[in-house]
Amino acid sequence: MKAKSESAEKTRQNLLAAATNVIRTKGYTATTVDDLCSYAGVTKGGFFHHFKSKEDLAIQATDYFAKMAQGLFTGAEYNKLQDPLERLLGYIDLRKNILQGEIYEYTCLLGTLVQETYNTSPSIRAACRKHMDEHIDEITKLVSEAKEAHCPDASFSAKSVAAFTQSVLQGSFILAKAQDSPLVACESVEHLKNYINSLFIK
Amino acid sequence: MKAKSESAEKTRQNLLAAATNVIRTKGYTATTVDDLCSYAGVTKGGFFHHFKSKEDLAIQATDYFAKMAQGLFTGAEYNKLQDPLERLLGYIDLRKNILQGEIYEYTCLLGTLVQETYNTSPSIRAACRKHMDEHIDEITKLVSEAKEAHCPDASFSAKSVAAFTQSVLQGSFILAKAQDSPLVACESVEHLKNYINSLFIK
Repeated sequence: MKAKSESAEKTRQNLLAAATNVIRTKGYTATTVDDLCSYAGVTKGGFFHHFKSKEDLAIQATDYFAKMAQGLFTGAEYNKLQDPLERLLGYIDLRKNILQGEIYEYTCLLGTLVQETYNTSPSIRAACRKHMDEHIDEITKLVSEAKEAHCPDASFSAKSVAAFTQSVLQGSFILAKAQDSPLVACESVEHLKNYINSLFIK
Repeated sequence: MKAKSESAEKTRQNLLAAATNVIRTKGYTATTVDDLCSYAGVTKGGFFHHFKSKEDLAIQATDYFAKMAQGLFTGAEYNKLQDPLERLLGYIDLRKNILQGEIYEYTCLLGTLVQETYNTSPSIRAACRKHMDEHIDEITKLVSEAKEAHCPDASFSAKSVAAFTQSVLQGSFILAKAQDSPLVACESVEHLKNYINSLFIK
């Protein structure tokens, strides 16, 4: 029984990874259940054993993707830095440093999904919003700690600055797709870093 | 003959407007030729008289959308301002002021299309890139003039700042879709304006 449940869990993980990669490559609507089964090496029976529908898998893939991203950020070296502003800038640097490889590898499943389905799938939109909000909350914490340490009387809202970092990143991915290169995205993240620095100069 | 060609042109314009609005509402792949005919009040025969395929219409809709946007910016009041920095900030203010109404009305056809089809339609991607690049060139001109007037020795690249403005806008649209509100987008554009201002403070 243990081997069987391990194998079932592996099938499930393969389908979650397939959804994360195929949707980021060709979009949600263009991705078929057949595409996902083929990418994951799973039968249709295996697919529907684990997921009710493509939409169900996409929603669970947002959890999978967010958990993967959270692991990357939680485990990053910048968290060990003493100065909270250095931690915030370390986060921005990491976002820049991961802009490499294939476009689907560095772009965001949540932004891709919500861009396309915001009006047609309320449950996908809600899942994307939940995970985007949670990440914004994490960054808000970084900004708040840096503000408290360096400029507690500054007028900016930490949450609004955190949301801005995500606007820049999501938009950078779109320009990278148009230009078929992460360079323009790297430059935008550099401007973001300049802006963050400018907020903390007294 | 004149009435006939006028009517044919009206059909074509209706289909271009339909593509612009329906694709921004439900995405490219989910939009069918039937959706477009129904929205435009045009028969399938009428559709294929004017366009070879949905992809052909989408590409021509990028021209239609870019021309409409260019008209909005070329005719805007900020162009009359003497100080080039004021013109640049006027452009940013206008981008903020038009963030209202339905989401499909204020989001960008080019960003929506390229997000979804960058890997599956090289011709849609090329059309989006062309128009995005042209708009970045227009904004580069505004930034260059402001730099020349206020801080000719500053180290920033006008083109890179112009591309950054578009990253912020495209990403703001995604956050607005997730949060079902343009407020987060307005705040991001405010941060963009703060950043532009910070570049010109000596």
